[in-house]
Amino acid sequence: MVTVGQAPTLDQIREAQKRIAPFVHRTPIYSSELLNAHCDAHLFFKCENLQKVGAFKARGAINAVFSLSEQQAFRGVATHSSGNHGAALAMAAGRRGIAAHIVMPDNAPAAKKAAVAAYGATIITCKPTLLAREEALAEVVSRTAAHVVHPYHDSRVIAGQGTVGLEILEQVKELDAVLVPVGGGGLLAGVAIAVKTINPKIEVVAVEPAGADDAFRSFGSGRLVTQTSPDTIADGLLTSLGELNFEIIQSHVDTIITVQDASIVEAMKLQWSRLKTVVEPSGAVSFAGVLEHADRFCNRRVAIVISGGNLDLDKLPWQQ
Amino acid sequence: MVTVGQAPTLDQIREAQKRIAPFVHRTPIYSSELLNAHCDAHLFFKCENLQKVGAFKARGAINAVFSLSEQQAFRGVATHSSGNHGAALAMAAGRRGIAAHIVMPDNAPAAKKAAVAAYGATIITCKPTLLAREEALAEVVSRTAAHVVHPYHDSRVIAGQGTVGLEILEQVKELDAVLVPVGGGGLLAGVAIAVKTINPKIEVVAVEPAGADDAFRSFGSGRLVTQTSPDTIADGLLTSLGELNFEIIQSHVDTIITVQDASIVEAMKLQWSRLKTVVEPSGAVSFAGVLEHADRFCNRRVAIVISGGNLDLDKLPWQQ
Repeated sequence: MVTVGQAPTLDQIREAQKRIAPFVHRTPIYSSELLNAHCDAHLFFKCENLQKVGAFKARGAINAVFSLSEQQAFRGVATHSSGNHGAALAMAAGRRGIAAHIVMPDNAPAAKKAAVAAYGATIITCKPTLLAREEALAEVVSRTAAHVVHPYHDSRVIAGQGTVGLEILEQVKELDAVLVPVGGGGLLAGVAIAVKTINPKIEVVAVEPAGADDAFRSFGSGRLVTQTSPDTIADGLLTSLGELNFEIIQSHVDTIITVQDASIVEAMKLQWSRLKTVVEPSGAVSFAGVLEHADRFCNRRVAIVISGGNLDLDKLPWQQ
Repeated sequence: MVTVGQAPTLDQIREAQKRIAPFVHRTPIYSSELLNAHCDAHLFFKCENLQKVGAFKARGAINAVFSLSEQQAFRGVATHSSGNHGAALAMAAGRRGIAAHIVMPDNAPAAKKAAVAAYGATIITCKPTLLAREEALAEVVSRTAAHVVHPYHDSRVIAGQGTVGLEILEQVKELDAVLVPVGGGGLLAGVAIAVKTINPKIEVVAVEPAGADDAFRSFGSGRLVTQTSPDTIADGLLTSLGELNFEIIQSHVDTIITVQDASIVEAMKLQWSRLKTVVEPSGAVSFAGVLEHADRFCNRRVAIVISGGNLDLDKLPWQQ
């Protein structure tokens, strides 16, 4: 799958906001006096775990699918995904009334396959390697002429994810910092463009698991590093940054910090017990950044993006 | 602890709504297309698990504490509680700036004791029997002259809980039924008065665990039955109805249905995974009513009260 387009502008993110509004939730901001006291900061949790399909991915997928011309759309869309993007694209295609072809590795959880199928998409299974996924997708595209929507190497997707940043600025006044998890970088890039273009004084902080720290290393060295052998509980953040997102991040993100898996689990449990909201490991990474780097955020007004809430309740990380 | 007052009127519930508004959340209504399809009904989940202290109990406690005259209040308040009412009363007293004395059994979970202490209340521990609790409370009252606030045998508490019903009618139009869990009956009585006085056509359905079905048996026989040896996962619904609430329920509730623990666990998991919201077993009882009695609610617009979200994440009922 190749990169589509250039970095979106603030205007394009605003257009995306209008385009997706009928199909996605304006998710709430949660706060907790107890967590504020615990962290000695003012925390504003942006609950994208309450988004359609349980993750921010609904925004980018809807924006991409509804940006297509009739000509582009009528043969349907396709992608490969083991996670939330597949379900999001299936949902978006269903809303537009076009076909979706989702290539999924044969070891994808049954619950994720069921979610994709429930939205009416066609599932093509393949071996669980990047090569097999790319080949299967190429075969689907050659057979169906479906339009490929990449999960994050795509300007329309980045613009859709950036609407999270617009909403945060509408919902919380006088912010000092925004914390965003980074995997492929689409959410981070979109939010950073929105926030920094509107108010450059707000610090944009990316948070990455220490066991999959390619963005941290790329940002520090100024050269795009590919992630090999990621090892983290945050299964949504295993992928490497793409070139487009790396460029955006270099110019719009203030810093990248890393967190240990133990902090991610602690963040999950605190959010579950105090906010009563179900957060997946990848979704808890940004709050883990506050827990592990407390001094940096002391007494500040900090937005924390909870990116998703999809996980297997029978395999919780604090259970043996 | 004795019953305080008579059944509250709709006007008293409306006064309670104004009185408590500065201190409690107007909790959201959640909905899910997938759960609607799963149940073949239109479901509106009233999220009192997102209330202050994680349960509707905050409403009744705030209303009781802020209904006290200066004369009544200045020596503080007291109660015995192993659960959410203790934390709610501690919170309410803290907001008013008066003392709270909470008698707790010595086997109460450490997390619950910590929550009560965090609100600045004094904890008095005792043996885990009703007699020991009553005695310890009597001793506290004779020593401090604190004002006792019972968790549900109290008109001010019932009026506070009834504000849940007012909010549901404000938030959801054209309802056919409201499902409410029943333990001591304060929430059920308050909601039933609010809903039935405003719109008698809306069916008020109480849901009770089959393993603690004293309300079901009392309602069926017309005579107040005391619960002995309750056996259910819904640890917030073990207590028996009081006389005042039984009278209110007889005149304002349409029916009481019971649910098995297996349905309660299924309801919990569906709410956690689909609504991304953390519901305690007692809080899932009303949704279990829809799952176990599906025909009754088919194609209807049904409000479901999620009463609370406080539980030990290390001991989930679907884990061994």
